[in-house]
Amino acid sequence: MKSYQEQPRSSSSCAACKFLKRRCTPNCQFAPYFRSDEPKKFAKVHKVFGASNVSKILNEVGEDQREDTVNSLVYEAEVRLRDPVYGCIGAIALLQHRMVELQHDLILARARLASYVGHRSLFLDDHGGSLMAPFLDIPESNSLPSDQFGRFHFP
Amino acid sequence: MKSYQEQPRSSSSCAACKFLKRRCTPNCQFAPYFRSDEPKKFAKVHKVFGASNVSKILNEVGEDQREDTVNSLVYEAEVRLRDPVYGCIGAIALLQHRMVELQHDLILARARLASYVGHRSLFLDDHGGSLMAPFLDIPESNSLPSDQFGRFHFP
Repeated sequence: MKSYQEQPRSSSSCAACKFLKRRCTPNCQFAPYFRSDEPKKFAKVHKVFGASNVSKILNEVGEDQREDTVNSLVYEAEVRLRDPVYGCIGAIALLQHRMVELQHDLILARARLASYVGHRSLFLDDHGGSLMAPFLDIPESNSLPSDQFGRFHFP
Repeated sequence: MKSYQEQPRSSSSCAACKFLKRRCTPNCQFAPYFRSDEPKKFAKVHKVFGASNVSKILNEVGEDQREDTVNSLVYEAEVRLRDPVYGCIGAIALLQHRMVELQHDLILARARLASYVGHRSLFLDDHGGSLMAPFLDIPESNSLPSDQFGRFHFP
């Protein structure tokens, strides 16, 4: 059995270079994040974002954030491949809908509780926010417009 | 003032063809969704997904779902451009964290209520599910692994 060092050079290429059929260099930008034994990981981001766009995004972020960036791109690509119409937006709309249901349930529970203990502070959540707000204070950059039925409205 | 019909042909090109500097044909796949007066809309999806991948995704879905597909791609691209590291995954992780907080608050409120009215059904939510479950029953395809602090864990 050949040792690792004796194996042909191609076997040490990262999954991205194998997929793109190019030589993997010691400075390969993809190699730290797309191991040769994970071929599907690169295939997914390539199919949704393209190798060039993944490379550009990786260049935009610091080295310490590149692993998280790759992982979030892989996850986003997987969701888009499963749901070509809505991708991650479908998951966000569903979560927003569930949150509205939970807020509604919490307001009801606290209204019933208030009828026993009579305390207005029950209508503040345990984290200082008002439960009467229609949505939690998701930062504007991450908020999505949605009606009361959780249907996602595009801007 | 020239009428619409008298304007040069290039002004009737869709935003995608203008961006790609190509002739916009009557059968252009992008024209119905990227109007000429919305140049940034196409620029965003092009930067994140690439024209070729957008085209492939549109070909995969039915004609009646293409507008939703384009809108979700535009939204996803906008979020990724604002947050190159996490994109939509950041919004999903935040929403999951808020949901865990709300579930926790609801369990507390119902536990207090139970001490007054003594009814076990308070621990079922208003939609038939158990509030003791750590997460709501988000379909597996849309669920994200996350610890109790809402930090998103990549698979």
